[in-house]
Amino acid sequence: MAYLDHAATTPMLAEALDAYTTAARDVGNPSSLHAAGRCARRLVEESRERIAAALNARPSEVVFTSGGTESDNLATKGIFWAQRSASLNRTRVIASAVEHHAVLDAVDWLGTHEGATVDILPVDETGAVDPDALADRLDRYRDEIAVVSVQWANNEVGTIQPIHELARLTAEAGVPFHTDAVQAVGQIPVDFAASGAAAMTLTGHKLGGPVGVGALLLGRDVPCTPLLHGGGQERDVRSGTLDTAGIAAFAVAVEMSVKSQQDYAARVSALRDDLITRVRQVVPDAVYNGATADRLPGNAHFSFPGCEGDALLLLLDAAGVACSTGSACSAGVAQPSHVLIAMGADDDRARSSLRFTLGHTSTIEEVDQLLAALPGTVERARRATAWKTPR
Amino acid sequence: MAYLDHAATTPMLAEALDAYTTAARDVGNPSSLHAAGRCARRLVEESRERIAAALNARPSEVVFTSGGTESDNLATKGIFWAQRSASLNRTRVIASAVEHHAVLDAVDWLGTHEGATVDILPVDETGAVDPDALADRLDRYRDEIAVVSVQWANNEVGTIQPIHELARLTAEAGVPFHTDAVQAVGQIPVDFAASGAAAMTLTGHKLGGPVGVGALLLGRDVPCTPLLHGGGQERDVRSGTLDTAGIAAFAVAVEMSVKSQQDYAARVSALRDDLITRVRQVVPDAVYNGATADRLPGNAHFSFPGCEGDALLLLLDAAGVACSTGSACSAGVAQPSHVLIAMGADDDRARSSLRFTLGHTSTIEEVDQLLAALPGTVERARRATAWKTPR
Repeated sequence: MAYLDHAATTPMLAEALDAYTTAARDVGNPSSLHAAGRCARRLVEESRERIAAALNARPSEVVFTSGGTESDNLATKGIFWAQRSASLNRTRVIASAVEHHAVLDAVDWLGTHEGATVDILPVDETGAVDPDALADRLDRYRDEIAVVSVQWANNEVGTIQPIHELARLTAEAGVPFHTDAVQAVGQIPVDFAASGAAAMTLTGHKLGGPVGVGALLLGRDVPCTPLLHGGGQERDVRSGTLDTAGIAAFAVAVEMSVKSQQDYAARVSALRDDLITRVRQVVPDAVYNGATADRLPGNAHFSFPGCEGDALLLLLDAAGVACSTGSACSAGVAQPSHVLIAMGADDDRARSSLRFTLGHTSTIEEVDQLLAALPGTVERARRATAWKTPR
Repeated sequence: MAYLDHAATTPMLAEALDAYTTAARDVGNPSSLHAAGRCARRLVEESRERIAAALNARPSEVVFTSGGTESDNLATKGIFWAQRSASLNRTRVIASAVEHHAVLDAVDWLGTHEGATVDILPVDETGAVDPDALADRLDRYRDEIAVVSVQWANNEVGTIQPIHELARLTAEAGVPFHTDAVQAVGQIPVDFAASGAAAMTLTGHKLGGPVGVGALLLGRDVPCTPLLHGGGQERDVRSGTLDTAGIAAFAVAVEMSVKSQQDYAARVSALRDDLITRVRQVVPDAVYNGATADRLPGNAHFSFPGCEGDALLLLLDAAGVACSTGSACSAGVAQPSHVLIAMGADDDRARSSLRFTLGHTSTIEEVDQLLAALPGTVERARRATAWKTPR
């Protein structure tokens, strides 16, 4: 199989799986006071320190969660609630139009259910947010904004946002800035302290760690109402028994992926650039979506005019090539990608798109396998589409 | 080490860990449409069916979560929000006084933050809820109640609640009934369909599965507002990438623990009864807390007059015996157990208590080790307490 869907989930590193199994063989709840509990607690705290060090955060800023979706929901809802409690005026929530659904749908719920005013930042044709658009809103609504959330890099087209500038503008206005860095950590340099963000989402399974474990980096001085109440773990922001084995594996993966990030990016972007060149050669009218410079190293995204993305995906799958039409989370949903639409694509272009994402196991042979299959696949998909929808 | 703290967390079954590592070696997001994704999806759905079969639920009623705390929060908050949306009158939330903090603190938040009226059901001296007390509230407030939550069995003193009767009364009043069955599954017979509950919490790490994976069994016709918005996984009730490996391991543990429940209960309750008899012999004034008949097979709970529970715990720990003073989640919190206080214990009795919980790895040698250490431990703790607080 040529696995070109690393943005959906990437294989677990052998070292991370080893860390999981080693820890899972020991019993002990990190909240227990006896030796077994303290031993588990030590492993959790060492893991917290490793993650903090890798991302230039303080250990106390690492709040363990069940993954990206929970971290995004906790940041947007939790900071909104805390800000509104402190000042009833603060009911505006700003997010970019190309956020993952874990932010967009959380924010949307705040609008429909909690009385928030939802303010969506537009993006340009590459998917990038214009800092001036944010600055303008911060000027106009400064005292009404509860939280601003803009992803570090997009999960569909790989566009890297001007996160330092967005975070700086937001912080200057005295508003907490959250960034979903799920796709960024391990792919490009990520420095929490230097970013100026108040909160940052990351998750294990996008960087070689386990599914079901993630973190919200949360500044010590950022009030955040819990989503999950209970035993009071994690600074009382996120209750629930700490998953010692998962956390140990997560820490190994964060550390390794951050340590190898530069070599990784050089190797994977070379493979990706080769893929792009060759796709354009075999399908000359393919439309390349997203940014060229400010882009994740492993991401390539095309629209194939006259094709349906789902048909392409299934035909490539039959040829042993795994890719996606957009976010895996929205797979099977019969709607064109909100990301491409926000970038100004029409329905046809949005529906005819495919995402190829490379990762730590990617090889030139996998790219070769895609390129061998692609011309015939596009040809077949075009015939099927032409037959279905004569124009 | 004598590990007598299985209610805090119990060792992962070798078969569950095998299932985890096998699945974790494969890549694939269950929401992806390609072969790798479909393979992961198949494993998730098979796991869902196994869990449903073991607990007599329908597969579509299994909503995977990150564990007990999330399931409890989702059930109480989610059902509350959904009921209030349907009828603005429904703002009353009823829970027993001996719930886990994941229910009590969630319900408390609904009171302080969401305008709920919180109505706490008292318990008798064994920790049991009186069905008449619930019936009375259902009579008086029928149209105002959004949700009733009573645990299947208590995590501290092991008292089993009259759950069928409580669920039946609640259902007759047209109100959704949630039960936290975290401590019950695998310990005593649990049949979701027969219970009459609308929602039921279970978690992996209390029955030999991994930490960080659990489920909410949720009737198909029970509206529930999500806590985590996003990709729309799990009937749109709980978004987030499904943890294939964790879910596979969880299913193995649920199935095995339910299958062996009868033999397990016979073996472990015999060990536990032996422990009780011998504790009473060596510390004649020890006070046994909780029910005698309707009690989890692995739970024994004593107050040792004149001792502080924390001192006992640490001295036993030094002798290689792991136990707890109450819920691990509240360990380190300098408050007497809300469970014992609700049962009518005074502060001294509550603070002098220890919980011993046995599980699938427990042996007579571990009980022997406790009994060898206990008399000297109690003696030392009494001297320390007498010195600290002369009376």
